Amino acid sequence: MTRHGIILLAHGSSDKRWCDTFEALAEPTIKAVDNSRIAYMELAEPSLDTVVHEGIANGTLEFTVVPLFLAAGRHLRKDVPAMIEALEKSTGASIRLCPPIGENPLLGQAIKDVVALQLGHNTGD
Amino acid sequence: MTRHGIILLAHGSSDKRWCDTFEALAEPTIKAVDNSRIAYMELAEPSLDTVVHEGIANGTLEFTVVPLFLAAGRHLRKDVPAMIEALEKSTGASIRLCPPIGENPLLGQAIKDVVALQLGHNTGD
Repeated sequence: MTRHGIILLAHGSSDKRWCDTFEALAEPTIKAVDNSRIAYMELAEPSLDTVVHEGIANGTLEFTVVPLFLAAGRHLRKDVPAMIEALEKSTGASIRLCPPIGENPLLGQAIKDVVALQLGHNTGD
Repeated sequence: MTRHGIILLAHGSSDKRWCDTFEALAEPTIKAVDNSRIAYMELAEPSLDTVVHEGIANGTLEFTVVPLFLAAGRHLRKDVPAMIEALEKSTGASIRLCPPIGENPLLGQAIKDVVALQLGHNTGD
């Protein structure tokens, strides 16, 4: 069976505090899902390129990229698909790009729960 | 008792599809929490300015702003606090800025659940 990797793709920033927040966001997934890692589109390491190449070196030939973005803008509509196409061509790996996490209704529910916590009461459901 | 308003603050985009995603993200909160609305920092309407002024016109003098951002960059560290300070001075309203939603551990759990759904299996907990 081909080994499968999960890549949680964040935008990236030169501000370490920004990356720290994304690493905390990724942590529950990385603990729960085998062969999952975070990667950054730009401005931080590890890059998508690094993570795909390291995965291939470890026998992973299929990747699922889950964008840690709330919505799809130019990056997810153009830049990331182009990066993935180039990586597939240069490496022979198969890389599936998922919709951004914010398009999943679970995120809207989590936001409601965060707001309720910040207001110090439960909104019920 | 002073009427209290919740503002879910998104960045904003000239791309209507981007805003549609944020409106879907905000919907569970808006349905569950009285006097809650979405506002955009820039590039889309309603702006933060508009939402605060309309709230005041309806008797709301205290606002809690919950940023629909996964992490704090320059916008949340500098631009938004400056916008809020100016609005407080010009209107007399009290506006509390919360941390971005991505700093709450609930978001990391939701991301794990989204990844599990996208992999078509449950990771357990």
